[in-house]
Parts: sequence; C-alpha cells; structure tokens
Amino acid sequence: MIINNKPYRTVWMENGIIKTINQLKLPEKFELVSLHNLEEVAGSINTMVVRGAPAIGGMCAYGLTQAILQLIEVDFDAILRAKSILQKTRPTAYDATHALDFVFRLVQGINDIPTLKKVALEAAEDYANLSVNACRKIGEYGERLIKDGHRILTHCNAGALATIDYGTALAPMRMAHYHGKQLHIYVDETRPRLQGAKLTAWELAQEGIPHSVIVDNASGFYMQQGKINLVITGADRIAANGDAANKIGTYEKAVVAKENKIPFYIAAPFSTIDFNCETGDHIPIEERDGKEVKEIAGIRIVGKQSQVKNPAFDVTPARYISGIITEKGILIPKEIKTLRNKHV
Amino acid sequence: MIINNKPYRTVWMENGIIKTINQLKLPEKFELVSLHNLEEVAGSINTMVVRGAPAIGGMCAYGLTQAILQLIEVDFDAILRAKSILQKTRPTAYDATHALDFVFRLVQGINDIPTLKKVALEAAEDYANLSVNACRKIGEYGERLIKDGHRILTHCNAGALATIDYGTALAPMRMAHYHGKQLHIYVDETRPRLQGAKLTAWELAQEGIPHSVIVDNASGFYMQQGKINLVITGADRIAANGDAANKIGTYEKAVVAKENKIPFYIAAPFSTIDFNCETGDHIPIEERDGKEVKEIAGIRIVGKQSQVKNPAFDVTPARYISGIITEKGILIPKEIKTLRNKHV
Repeated sequence: MIINNKPYRTVWMENGIIKTINQLKLPEKFELVSLHNLEEVAGSINTMVVRGAPAIGGMCAYGLTQAILQLIEVDFDAILRAKSILQKTRPTAYDATHALDFVFRLVQGINDIPTLKKVALEAAEDYANLSVNACRKIGEYGERLIKDGHRILTHCNAGALATIDYGTALAPMRMAHYHGKQLHIYVDETRPRLQGAKLTAWELAQEGIPHSVIVDNASGFYMQQGKINLVITGADRIAANGDAANKIGTYEKAVVAKENKIPFYIAAPFSTIDFNCETGDHIPIEERDGKEVKEIAGIRIVGKQSQVKNPAFDVTPARYISGIITEKGILIPKEIKTLRNKHV
Repeated sequence: MIINNKPYRTVWMENGIIKTINQLKLPEKFELVSLHNLEEVAGSINTMVVRGAPAIGGMCAYGLTQAILQLIEVDFDAILRAKSILQKTRPTAYDATHALDFVFRLVQGINDIPTLKKVALEAAEDYANLSVNACRKIGEYGERLIKDGHRILTHCNAGALATIDYGTALAPMRMAHYHGKQLHIYVDETRPRLQGAKLTAWELAQEGIPHSVIVDNASGFYMQQGKINLVITGADRIAANGDAANKIGTYEKAVVAKENKIPFYIAAPFSTIDFNCETGDHIPIEERDGKEVKEIAGIRIVGKQSQVKNPAFDVTPARYISGIITEKGILIPKEIKTLRNKHV
C-alpha cells in the first residue's frame, strides 16, 4: 500500500525484529512498532496494534519464526509453546492457525539449529509473499464485479492494514481505482473499535480513492435509497457450508443488502476457509472487553449503573452471500464443500 | 419519570420560564436548564438539549405560549413568526407541527391580551397533560405485548426523556416492570449521538430496569441468536400508509427483525401520524452536521482527508412494522389510512 507516497507492507521482518504499523495510532499518527519477542508479538495481536485475519496470520508466521530464530538449540517443546501462545491470541480468525501450521510443517523434524532457523525464516517470508499474492489475485477477480461509477459499501477494515498488503475487500476497489474506474466507497465507521472510520478511510485517502464515512446505522438507509451497487466485506473464518464470520454488524448488512437485491460479497484468502468447521454455528465468537463499548477515546459514554455486552464478530449465513472472492476465483458459498479435498 | 428518587417531567413551565433536563449532559450530570425566550427555546431544540419528537412537541407548545406571554399587545404577526421559527427547528418530527397547531387554534382570533395569555397558558398545559396521558396509554396497550421474561430491543431513546413523561417505546417496558414482569432490555447505543448509550440506559438505570447497552452492529447478532423476543422503537413521523420515520438505523433493525420473525413495533402518540403525508417517501430526512460522525466527545475519529455523511433518520416501510402502539390502541399500519377522517 502507498503511505505518504511510499510503499509499505503491514507486517515485515528486519534482522529478526518484526515491524508493523501501529493501528491504534491511526489516523492521527503513522507510527511503526518493533516487536522483539513472543510476548510483544502476542501483545500486538491482543491489543490490536495489528488486526485483521490475514495480517494476524502474517504476524503469527513471523512471530513463530522469530521465536525459532531466538532458540539456542533445537527445542520443539518451546516451538510448540510459542505456537500455542500465538494460536490463542484471538479465537475467531482462522488465518492464525493456517499461518502457524504453514511454518510448523516446514520446520517440523529439522534437528540442526542453523537449518531450522534458515527454513523458518524462508517459511515466514514465503507465507507473507503468498499472502500478498493472494490478495492481489483477490483484487483482480473482485474487480470484475465493479463497474465504472459504482458505489460500494464496506464494513470494518479489510484493507491493506488487515492483510500484509492490498487487502481483501479493498483489493478489488484498489484495482478498479488503478484502472481508472470512478468509484465512491461508503465506509461503515464500525463500532465499537471504529476500524472503518479510523483505518479504511485513512487507507482510501492515502491512495486518493473517493469515499464517505457513515455511521453503521446509515448503511441500510443508503441501500434502501439505491445508493449502493455492491457490498464487499472481509471474513475472519469461513465454514465448510459457506457461512462466514466477520466483524460484528456484517450479518445485518448482508440481510439488508439481500432485502434490497444488492450483491453481497465476502473477499478473503482461500486459507480463511476452515474445512473442519461444518457450519457457522461452530465458529467461536470472541466477546471483548466491555470498555470498548463503555468508552470512546477514554471518555465514558455509558452510565456506571449500566451493563454492556460486546461480541466482536457475527456469522453471516451462506444464503446471504452472493460469492466469496478468493485468489482461486469467486466461489459460490454452497460449492465450498466440494473443494474440501482439492485445497492445497 | 423517577430521577434520583424524585418524579420529573422532561419539559415544564414555571412562572413563564421553561424548564428542561439538559440531555447533552447525561449520563454524567443531571442538570436542569431554564429557557427565557424564543431564541433559547429554538436553540434548545437545534442543539438537542431537548430531543425526541413528543418532547420537541411539548417544547414547541410551551415555546409558543412563552412567546405569547411576553407580548405587550395582541400581535398575531409576531405569534406566527414565533410559530414559524419553532416549526423550522427540526424538519422530520411531526409532533412540532401538531403542538404548534394545537396552541395556535386555541388562541387564534382572541383580541384581548389577558385572555390571549390565559388561553395560551392553558393550551400549553393541556397539551403537556394530554401528551403525558397518551404516553401512559401507550404503555398500557404496549404492555400487552410483553411477557414475563421477555428480552426486548430498542433503538435510540424513545423514553420519558424523548417525551414529556413515560416515553413511547419505553412506556410499555416501564409498565411491565411496574407490574413485576422480569425483563431485559437490549439498548442500541445509537450512533452518531449515542442516545441509547447515554439516555435510554440512564433512564432504565434510574428505575432499576435490567438492560445491556450494545453497539448498533450487535443487535442483528442477538436477534439471530434468538435472544430478542420483541423490538419496540419510537417514531418521528408516520405517513398515512404506515411507513414510519425514526432515528437512523431503525430501518435496518426492522428488516433484520422480520428476517428473524421477531415482532417489530413502533410506539408513538397518534399525533405522530401525518395524514397529509401519503407515504414515507415524502417525509423530509434531516442531514445533520458531519461533526457528529467525525468526532466523538470532541475527539476526532475520522482523518482530515475523509468526507462523511450524516442522515439523522430513515424510513421503515409499513410492511416491516407489526403494529403501531398508540394511545388509541395498537394499529395495523395498513389500517391507518382508514382512520384519516376519524382523528380528532
């Protein structure tokens, strides 16, 4: 992605140190963070310095590799402990599992320390490059859905900041913009954490893609008014039957889109599909700290005598999803099951 | 309503001075405001010190009366100017028109100043009392829909603070609570102005009614999970075909409720029905200052290079509305037209 006219990835490694963009500081401040050990890496995911399923995947791949690079001798117990710590950072995103398995499978059984480190480093870099390429392909496939003049709604941030580069939901919009199509993106602000207002809008502004931030409540209004041609969001985990977990509120948008006959697409790398998960009912939904609802920017908005609830994700049943834009093409949700044995 | 164990109305008059609860200060601080003239009254509506269609109606009735009480001689041009200024404060709420017409009809043609003032004062007090009684009746009719153990979703604040007392959407919940029914209210926080988080939760806490504040994005999740038995919201204007304008986001909730076979009710005084408005398409939708989206509690959440849009209301088509709870009973939206000639 382009930031202040320079190309960046969201997560990368330099001399064993992991670098990432501090997403808690945007849009006010563009700040890079250096992560030196497993604790800092896990903390960056927990506190959402880095967030978005594919970016968490990237962070986990680099994090496990960093733990391996810091070993003095081959110690698979330590590697499994690191894997387990990273695995548990956030429960809903499936890319973390995928990324950790990707690195682990390549290093498993290697019993000399220089080879172990070399393979781990290559594994993390390969994972990152494959992930970037997947997002670019998602952009290419997804762009086919976008016509000149389209107005597109997106929810949360499924942009370059949520991936290693390009984004998932935003990749098709990027490609369409690069190819000269006139677009207008409606950006749901995405309470409680405001990833739409803070991250998606910032990312789109960096690349000059026209957009308007709206409160989450207003997206139905614009759909009803015929102002939205297409909805694209990301996903954190897709079940084998095509049900997709994504940021809280996605389900509502999908229902209202269907009611208004507006195509609703999910954009996600193929690795987001959890073939071991039969339906969306089995996807664990993270309940986050109530403080995210009670306070905005440290200012209390809910009285002390009131309770809050804060589910971070919801599941959109496959019947509301027009298609899933992946690096392997645009999949029809109900066909996913048939790909079970074909996935690499 | 009970506040700090004492009964209050939202708007009232004492010795020609209008008193209201400053809703911009809640929930942090319970503060009364005194309004001394037309400019202050119109300002209290514009800046949303007072908000909610029936409360705006009450404020307009008292505001027009105050303007009349301050006349030195009978001057209907001045009265019409005051009426017009109050009328224009906010375009969507129909109660303002109704309240102003109510007072104006009673004073019209009176040509001695003491009688004019006496009638105006009685008119405003009558309007307020009728409004309170209407809300109490809404509570009684609406309570019939509520069973012991029900979990009810509401959007925005259609409570005592949005009316002169009792509320519209909250009146049935109050009555059910008074009669010992166990309830749990899911309160949408209601961006951009957070009336749910700030006002509804505070009101419910004052009377000990169990509730949880959720972000607007989460209501679909709880509906899908079978956690919501009933949805009740207020309305700012109801068209003759049963379409209802209410706080932005209401339309989405209604669509998702229907999809999940959850009854969706509007609670509003009969005076909210605008028989001159054939369908919801003719209801003017106020677009408010973008600052409400760009900033929360004075803190900027959207980058400077990004645009925002801020429609304050949306229209829920009659087909999503199970019924309209009024002081005359629970109306079926499509039957409203037949009442056109029966309304008082």
